[in-house]
Amino acid sequence: MSTFAIPRSVEWRETHVTILNQQKLPTVTEYIDLHTIEDVYDAIATLKVRGAPAIGITAAYGLALAASSYDTESVDEFRRRLKQDRDYLAGARPTAVNLFWALDRLVAAVENAVSINEAKTTLIHEAIHIQVEDEDVCRRIGEHALSLFQPGDRVMTICNAGSIATARYGTALAPFYLAKEKGIELSVYALETRPVLQGARLTAWELMQAGVDVTLITDNMAAQTIKAKQINAIIVGADRIARNGDTANKIGTFGLALLAKSFGIPFYVAAPLSTIDLATKTGEDIPIEERHPDEVTHLAGVRIAPEGVHVYNPAFDVTPNELITAIITEKGIVRSNYETALPSLFAKEEHHETV
Amino acid sequence: MSTFAIPRSVEWRETHVTILNQQKLPTVTEYIDLHTIEDVYDAIATLKVRGAPAIGITAAYGLALAASSYDTESVDEFRRRLKQDRDYLAGARPTAVNLFWALDRLVAAVENAVSINEAKTTLIHEAIHIQVEDEDVCRRIGEHALSLFQPGDRVMTICNAGSIATARYGTALAPFYLAKEKGIELSVYALETRPVLQGARLTAWELMQAGVDVTLITDNMAAQTIKAKQINAIIVGADRIARNGDTANKIGTFGLALLAKSFGIPFYVAAPLSTIDLATKTGEDIPIEERHPDEVTHLAGVRIAPEGVHVYNPAFDVTPNELITAIITEKGIVRSNYETALPSLFAKEEHHETV
Repeated sequence: MSTFAIPRSVEWRETHVTILNQQKLPTVTEYIDLHTIEDVYDAIATLKVRGAPAIGITAAYGLALAASSYDTESVDEFRRRLKQDRDYLAGARPTAVNLFWALDRLVAAVENAVSINEAKTTLIHEAIHIQVEDEDVCRRIGEHALSLFQPGDRVMTICNAGSIATARYGTALAPFYLAKEKGIELSVYALETRPVLQGARLTAWELMQAGVDVTLITDNMAAQTIKAKQINAIIVGADRIARNGDTANKIGTFGLALLAKSFGIPFYVAAPLSTIDLATKTGEDIPIEERHPDEVTHLAGVRIAPEGVHVYNPAFDVTPNELITAIITEKGIVRSNYETALPSLFAKEEHHETV
Repeated sequence: MSTFAIPRSVEWRETHVTILNQQKLPTVTEYIDLHTIEDVYDAIATLKVRGAPAIGITAAYGLALAASSYDTESVDEFRRRLKQDRDYLAGARPTAVNLFWALDRLVAAVENAVSINEAKTTLIHEAIHIQVEDEDVCRRIGEHALSLFQPGDRVMTICNAGSIATARYGTALAPFYLAKEKGIELSVYALETRPVLQGARLTAWELMQAGVDVTLITDNMAAQTIKAKQINAIIVGADRIARNGDTANKIGTFGLALLAKSFGIPFYVAAPLSTIDLATKTGEDIPIEERHPDEVTHLAGVRIAPEGVHVYNPAFDVTPNELITAIITEKGIVRSNYETALPSLFAKEEHHETV
């Protein structure tokens, strides 16, 4: 066991931030020290760090790091520079909601600061707090999810809803790490997840680091694998969950949910409350982003399809709520009746658990 | 229209055989002239020609070509050398049933030959006959399949059951070429078909050559595409069809059949009678071949998954008969009741149509 560890993608080192360079996985395991706000911006912009929570955490540390070296005695000047740096980092991934949320939380934390020193310390503490909270949320999701599995279960997953996308543990992968900690054997079947191969490159890698039994398959092997390997359940993460439980997640998730129904096995969505968007009524309100055809026609820079071929490249799909056996959050497990059950999770929420 | 043509993978040129080098697709369209039996052996062994019918046709031409230069006056010596060359070519792909079948058909054709000249001519005619028959079979399959589609239909397919795998037209792709010939517009959605990408490399390429409207997607986009693009039907080829209709085909086919059922759209198998194996009672009797993990962990020579990861790599899967709306053969369309209907196709068969 001692050689295995759940990988972390971001760590605070007082004078700098250390991140796992996810761009080099799975062939090279490289950790990079980020010493300046420019380093942090670059790491986010070039996708060295990815996963909404991990991006938010890295950005928060980046802002705290930048502020720690502001050479001013004026609190107003401090705040002015902080907002400037907030805006700079917010531009690293212009559509990353979690990034803005984390940065704004830091700015808000020093709104009433009376001294520069207090503000600098507060920023660092707030950034650490964001990471600790996220790890706590993921661990709770994992505990709830693990209660749904039996020892020996074989569980399928897609994409990377994993430790390196979050503070630690991940969401859909959290139960596998907790099972490992508790000595419960679970086997994971990871879909490679074309076109960007997050399953092959990231999920397989991080589960192997922790000594979790993982088998890689291509996406079109799902049905055969469920049958031949007697898969017990499917668990996935979520990009966004509508008020009625409809779930947007990595392309291929909807197909897996339909397979789960065909085979009569449960289909679980594991996600923090922050992923649930009560303002989105149903999945119909979530537009499907289409990405560049090159993602499909090229692999590792090599062309694998004819020049000029038409491509349809939706980044994600929406799984209708009736195909979801349960949604697993840090606040517990919701089964059906999502329309009423999901909002009620927020009602009983305590502030320190909202991430 | 004049710039478009249905590509052929094999053509007889009197002094040599010309083949399409399928190994270089889709980036390079290269035709190679095979002048010797060694050239033909190499083309088959190194997968420059692929697809069971295309391999059989190429081998037949190779054997006829070799025999045409036998420098002997003895019919016995001629037959001895023919069998030697037959065995040599049969070793190019040791598990290719169609290869043995085509070669043995040539050997049998000259069993009663009384002169060397007659035998040489007979071999060439028999090889040409095999190709003409296969083209005829494919065209009939295409006509029957086309009768199941409406103008404007959007049809999904997997792998390459196409023109370049056969004499011409292919099986699952035949209706699209016939529709094009008749000026009927159909749109094809081709799954890339991991791990070997026959859909991206071959199906997309050959349909584009003929001016057929084709859109490429990754395998995990099937469900979203059926929904968003309102796919009307799915059509696939077959490696082997059991007596009860259970169909072994490229990995991913079974999952597509389940999706077709979920969406309430028809799922068609298009295949020649030669694919139906009445000696195989059900799909349970078909062992699932597993291939090398490198096919999944590497792409175009580049590693895309962690070293040492477990891989499950089944080459094909078996679709149970109850998920198959119809099996389309050169003898007509069979819907359900396969156990009785499939054997009866053979009963009414005329000899010149068995390929």
